[in-house]
Amino acid sequence: MDVLITPQIEQLLKIALEEDIGAGDITTLSTVAREASGVGRFRAKRDCVVAGLFLLEKIFSLLDAAVKVRPLSRDGDRVAKGTVVAEARGPVRALLMGERTALNFLQRLSGTATLARHFVDAVKEFPCKIIDTRKTTPGLRTLEKYAVRMGGATNHRLGLYDAAIVKDNHIAASGSIAKAVEEIRRQSPFMARIEVECANIEQVEEALAARADVIMLDNMTTKEMAEAVKFIGKRAWVEASGGITLERVREVAQAGVDFISIGALTHSAPAVDFNMKIATLGESHG
Amino acid sequence: MDVLITPQIEQLLKIALEEDIGAGDITTLSTVAREASGVGRFRAKRDCVVAGLFLLEKIFSLLDAAVKVRPLSRDGDRVAKGTVVAEARGPVRALLMGERTALNFLQRLSGTATLARHFVDAVKEFPCKIIDTRKTTPGLRTLEKYAVRMGGATNHRLGLYDAAIVKDNHIAASGSIAKAVEEIRRQSPFMARIEVECANIEQVEEALAARADVIMLDNMTTKEMAEAVKFIGKRAWVEASGGITLERVREVAQAGVDFISIGALTHSAPAVDFNMKIATLGESHG
Amino acid sequence: MDVLITPQIEQLLKIALEEDIGAGDITTLSTVAREASGVGRFRAKRDCVVAGLFLLEKIFSLLDAAVKVRPLSRDGDRVAKGTVVAEARGPVRALLMGERTALNFLQRLSGTATLARHFVDAVKEFPCKIIDTRKTTPGLRTLEKYAVRMGGATNHRLGLYDAAIVKDNHIAASGSIAKAVEEIRRQSPFMARIEVECANIEQVEEALAARADVIMLDNMTTKEMAEAVKFIGKRAWVEASGGITLERVREVAQAGVDFISIGALTHSAPAVDFNMKIATLGESHG
Amino acid sequence: MDVLITPQIEQLLKIALEEDIGAGDITTLSTVAREASGVGRFRAKRDCVVAGLFLLEKIFSLLDAAVKVRPLSRDGDRVAKGTVVAEARGPVRALLMGERTALNFLQRLSGTATLARHFVDAVKEFPCKIIDTRKTTPGLRTLEKYAVRMGGATNHRLGLYDAAIVKDNHIAASGSIAKAVEEIRRQSPFMARIEVECANIEQVEEALAARADVIMLDNMTTKEMAEAVKFIGKRAWVEASGGITLERVREVAQAGVDFISIGALTHSAPAVDFNMKIATLGESHG
Amino acid sequence: MDVLITPQIEQLLKIALEEDIGAGDITTLSTVAREASGVGRFRAKRDCVVAGLFLLEKIFSLLDAAVKVRPLSRDGDRVAKGTVVAEARGPVRALLMGERTALNFLQRLSGTATLARHFVDAVKEFPCKIIDTRKTTPGLRTLEKYAVRMGGATNHRLGLYDAAIVKDNHIAASGSIAKAVEEIRRQSPFMARIEVECANIEQVEEALAARADVIMLDNMTTKEMAEAVKFIGKRAWVEASGGITLERVREVAQAGVDFISIGALTHSAPAVDFNMKIATLGESHG
Amino acid sequence: MDVLITPQIEQLLKIALEEDIGAGDITTLSTVAREASGVGRFRAKRDCVVAGLFLLEKIFSLLDAAVKVRPLSRDGDRVAKGTVVAEARGPVRALLMGERTALNFLQRLSGTATLARHFVDAVKEFPCKIIDTRKTTPGLRTLEKYAVRMGGATNHRLGLYDAAIVKDNHIAASGSIAKAVEEIRRQSPFMARIEVECANIEQVEEALAARADVIMLDNMTTKEMAEAVKFIGKRAWVEASGGITLERVREVAQAGVDFISIGALTHSAPAVDFNMKIATLGESHG
Repeated sequence: MDVLITPQIEQLLKIALEEDIGAGDITTLSTVAREASGVGRFRAKRDCVVAGLFLLEKIFSLLDAAVKVRPLSRDGDRVAKGTVVAEARGPVRALLMGERTALNFLQRLSGTATLARHFVDAVKEFPCKIIDTRKTTPGLRTLEKYAVRMGGATNHRLGLYDAAIVKDNHIAASGSIAKAVEEIRRQSPFMARIEVECANIEQVEEALAARADVIMLDNMTTKEMAEAVKFIGKRAWVEASGGITLERVREVAQAGVDFISIGALTHSAPAVDFNMKIATLGESHG
Repeated sequence: MDVLITPQIEQLLKIALEEDIGAGDITTLSTVAREASGVGRFRAKRDCVVAGLFLLEKIFSLLDAAVKVRPLSRDGDRVAKGTVVAEARGPVRALLMGERTALNFLQRLSGTATLARHFVDAVKEFPCKIIDTRKTTPGLRTLEKYAVRMGGATNHRLGLYDAAIVKDNHIAASGSIAKAVEEIRRQSPFMARIEVECANIEQVEEALAARADVIMLDNMTTKEMAEAVKFIGKRAWVEASGGITLERVREVAQAGVDFISIGALTHSAPAVDFNMKIATLGESHG
Repeated sequence: MDVLITPQIEQLLKIALEEDIGAGDITTLSTVAREASGVGRFRAKRDCVVAGLFLLEKIFSLLDAAVKVRPLSRDGDRVAKGTVVAEARGPVRALLMGERTALNFLQRLSGTATLARHFVDAVKEFPCKIIDTRKTTPGLRTLEKYAVRMGGATNHRLGLYDAAIVKDNHIAASGSIAKAVEEIRRQSPFMARIEVECANIEQVEEALAARADVIMLDNMTTKEMAEAVKFIGKRAWVEASGGITLERVREVAQAGVDFISIGALTHSAPAVDFNMKIATLGESHG
Repeated sequence: MDVLITPQIEQLLKIALEEDIGAGDITTLSTVAREASGVGRFRAKRDCVVAGLFLLEKIFSLLDAAVKVRPLSRDGDRVAKGTVVAEARGPVRALLMGERTALNFLQRLSGTATLARHFVDAVKEFPCKIIDTRKTTPGLRTLEKYAVRMGGATNHRLGLYDAAIVKDNHIAASGSIAKAVEEIRRQSPFMARIEVECANIEQVEEALAARADVIMLDNMTTKEMAEAVKFIGKRAWVEASGGITLERVREVAQAGVDFISIGALTHSAPAVDFNMKIATLGESHG
Repeated sequence: MDVLITPQIEQLLKIALEEDIGAGDITTLSTVAREASGVGRFRAKRDCVVAGLFLLEKIFSLLDAAVKVRPLSRDGDRVAKGTVVAEARGPVRALLMGERTALNFLQRLSGTATLARHFVDAVKEFPCKIIDTRKTTPGLRTLEKYAVRMGGATNHRLGLYDAAIVKDNHIAASGSIAKAVEEIRRQSPFMARIEVECANIEQVEEALAARADVIMLDNMTTKEMAEAVKFIGKRAWVEASGGITLERVREVAQAGVDFISIGALTHSAPAVDFNMKIATLGESHG
Repeated sequence: MDVLITPQIEQLLKIALEEDIGAGDITTLSTVAREASGVGRFRAKRDCVVAGLFLLEKIFSLLDAAVKVRPLSRDGDRVAKGTVVAEARGPVRALLMGERTALNFLQRLSGTATLARHFVDAVKEFPCKIIDTRKTTPGLRTLEKYAVRMGGATNHRLGLYDAAIVKDNHIAASGSIAKAVEEIRRQSPFMARIEVECANIEQVEEALAARADVIMLDNMTTKEMAEAVKFIGKRAWVEASGGITLERVREVAQAGVDFISIGALTHSAPAVDFNMKIATLGESHG
């Protein structure tokens, strides 16, 4: 599922340009003629899954409507080191003033997509899905969730508003898992699904009795997870959660869970390095 | 140098809360009474340098002015795994609705501060300074530069507006390094310093002749850097740049450069895990 | 489920104040002394369910932090004509400048809550629930969905992002109901539920086969609905939709559907009239 | 008098799109190809006066500049049930994602225009004019006042800033009607007109003596109004105000007032139902 | 008539702080301890009419809620060179970071108030009033109109929305002054007054015939104005407009016009110099 | 160095249009047909240096994308009274609604550019440069600094963030000039230059010892300045500051300083009068 550039995303692009350009690019505006035009090529500096190309046109056009961007790859593609993934053509001033902002989006979203892809590949023999969390970068929730999908993984809830996850504090406040689930069902939008975070098999049992849609197995050993999966027996979906690394993920998948959530997809994916090189086209760009 | 929460930073906090809470936290609002109050404790889950504590009070007060935050560490402190770095006291609903946003800032800024500290420590016997780059997260420039300082490192320019860096495209557009520097000096704010990115010793020579304030040695070998430093002979500050890892940084420092810039501080620092546990205080919080 | 005043709701309050006050209330600022203080009493001018009281404090404090609001009813209460539902105490200038904005929110949200309550009461002997739609006032989605809940009804999805509803265009684009549902399940957040709008029993059958979570019976006669409910036999939730009036709603509930959606709750609820009368307290409000 | 889409109105359109689309239309983005294009036809589902057509192009272009809208009616036209009032042509994804927002504006503004037209028609034999009030939907003041004009009625003041209305609290604060009017004249923009709300003939007399531009007869019987009109004798304009229904409006007009203000135009006009049906054009839209 | 700090004015204060402080005051944050507190005194450096004091508290509190401002003069007061007009007490960091923004508002608004006062004084023996124009600083319309009032002058219309002024292009478009006035009366809010810009006595005659509320005598000689005033004979208000200087204003007043508009009040008033000196109070400001 | 219209500048243009147009131009919308098109010519009403032409296209296109602007001069040109500096072609409604906003920018920026040019010309035989200050109009910092450059002068720092100026309060807080400079060097971005404000020769000495980049001679007599320049002997740049008028500036330049800062460039430059006359083109503008 890809995305449209909504007004909210456009707002983020403006903030990003603003914080980089501020009162103006003093190097470029002093040295590059207003009329100079060129073509900038975005190149991947390592093998990766690319994500964020769909933003490039808008980033540059916020600076100068004369810049035209041609993507040469598609978001979600695996590209080899050295691949030119997009070209931007237009006034050199705008190319240079938008370059860093464009690269900062590209390197981060591709980083998340690439890491997601590694996890997805690691469990590909199993029916389970890799999912993300709410541990995202402030301001980038929608874009990072998009990058997760571009890496072949699946989104967990978007925020606190679209699905319920009952945790210890909610249980304590309500009195029991059963009461918490009942209250949510009574008060929330009727289509919102309910997940219960369970630390042990007793809580799993309570959650099932309360007819939770999803059971989260929180920080359990692989063995405990396998037992829980068996106990649940398809009566609810099962999510494994808590510090699951690339090394361990296959084993967790083998335990039979339906979903494995990985916070690192969005909070600790290393950036993928890209650069943009400009070839000058001359003085007029009509 | 620490920071005030300017209106611009407050705006980012609002965007972050908005994208997480949206139309409302359906779990919390259904299960936790309006009157319930408690205290949430933020705990580091590994050794780190903490950064971002100064934001917590504002994050929660944007949701409910009744929440009071007491920091127990200071930004820039090295804290051991298990340390409680802050307490937030007030309505449980606001604590739960602000929790993830608060943690998302804390984990990311502490990640950058911690990585910066590793680099700073690695070169502590040398007079050279670790500096950051413009490869920051869109929207978080000011905060990430703050985290860099909290890790003991130094900031490079803030953006395109406060200092000039002459790169290949600017040289090509102006005709020569000399002309580029001259134009910038003529047109820019007179206090703005000028750096020139040099790929080889010839460019270093030209940059010196143009009286550049800073010479950037771009992607040179350690040996080339040592030679360039010698050639420059204190006539300008020298910055080493380009893919310098924690493994290699000490050797680069030994080459005698004044500054070593590390993009990874802001684009690839792994998050530091923190959590917040709530102890309920009862039904009234006056 | 009540709500917090998030930064987004605060933004709407500011827009509303701005469009009414603009460059200043020329009547009040010319005639009322800066020091005059008073108490304004909000009174219902007909029997109703009140909603929107939680906004009053914020509306007035955006104008002057010295205004204090004391609610005398709670949102969701049925109040009789003449009831004073809240008092605002403070500078008369701020009371007069915020009065209309406060009333405009109160009259509209109470209108929706009151109409929702009429529908809920009409079907109270049945297990079915009254739900709202996305036919809300631009800019007021979150608040109007809150008012619906205050009237005892239940929310349908919040927007296009938190649940899927497959309509004719989606079916046409995918090729079949089955393919549409499958694609959504593959690409959407895994917790998002899926509803299928059905115009006839064949589509109901297809939707069931595709394991839709909810079946919408669109513009069917009560008899067709009863048959569909029987056919579905609890294999999915059933929503009745399409021009259902207060006169007809009981009969639809009797057909056995789980949910009845009513667009009029938010697009055509007549406002409930409230006024605010000020008693002056004198010249100082230190 | 029609309107331009100012930056402020554009901001409202963005808020409306944002609250409906949020992180993305999960149904459409999963089922409709990026390349699919079509034409959406907006059809009135009952006889009405249409208003809001001028917004459609902007709403869709905020999502995708490729959508082109062709209005087939003009705002202010009376259209029969079944009339296609506009066509939007372009990417199906953008058509579906903008549909509900477009309809929500159209149904509400047409509702107000239609109700205004009923009132205007009811008094068409008299020289008096139907006017609106400040009882508008928060955030929609400018648009609703436009809809009132499209229904053939006239606008009262826009807000607190463009004309003065002296009410009981202002009189109490100033000491008398005369003093209130004098102070406003001394301090306000000199072109701002002044109206005085009068509950009885004594106040009318005082207001005339103070040379008020407009006298508001507040909640008087038709007989009292006729007497007041006679007493005023063209020395000021006369506005009738207070709960005047479609049933009673003709009688009030007959009393000889110049203006009749109707809050219901903007706070209680039932929405006019419109729908949008899409005909698919195929896979490419250039 | 003074003003409240509406959300819109607060927005301007934020923009002003942002453009001055940006990523942070590197001098102050490096040299002044977080705990240092002091008192800053705002002093007029020449005789003037002060305006803008009401903004100081908000400017500083946007940076730090701990700053408290005590005005020692009132907006509109004539103060002698050397007068301390306000004190701000609190953290020195916030005092220094807000200083320039506070002074920039104060110097400009006091400049306008002082110039307005000079014009008002120059015509004080005449019944005519000095009024402003729409030639204001972009973004400061409301505040500059306030400063005009503080100088004892009167506001012309606020913008294009609250009153009509018919100029040559409108006359050309409508066909005649009569038609232009008639159309405005038919389509505009009924309380909006109408002024007609007249270049000669024929146009004055037409404007009177059309029952314009105000006649603007545009760029006439004093003699022509006197004749026009006589011709009009109180049938409408008369405004003199066009390059009227302090030297000439008394003569124009003598011609008998009701209003004299002076663009220079807002576009060319020299700033009044103020400074702020800080006395340090020590390390704690609990 | 010219500028791009960044999103931030666009925001200011929107605010300016909004405050002038508000709910709509009631004169124009009532009298000018939607279809009428024309050409507006911007003419200087006195000799000046023009600045702000680059904004015109954007101002009008925010109202109607159909307006096309053709500049006939370039920002920074000296133009004679009567020169047409730009033409705007398109719908007359948009021309009239944007006219005042366009002129308000043009008159102010040209005022600053013209005054800057006078100062620059006055010292043209000397190597010293005229520079601006932070005494700018709230909200217009970037644009006014641009106008200063268009007048041939040079920018001082942009704000508190891009360079340090140590003043009395910073010295007091740090203990000495030496300590203040040292702290700034330790904590600030390494490329930020440091200036020290000196009231006497002792402070100059201290500032030199601390290796300040720039010495500001604050409110010294010309004789004191000449002595300070001699004493400094090129060891730092020297700025003269404090109430320097057009009459005195040549004498200050003669004293040998490198920079002379003039607050009046931005806080007290009289506006340059421009007007816009429209020639109507007829009813269609395709």
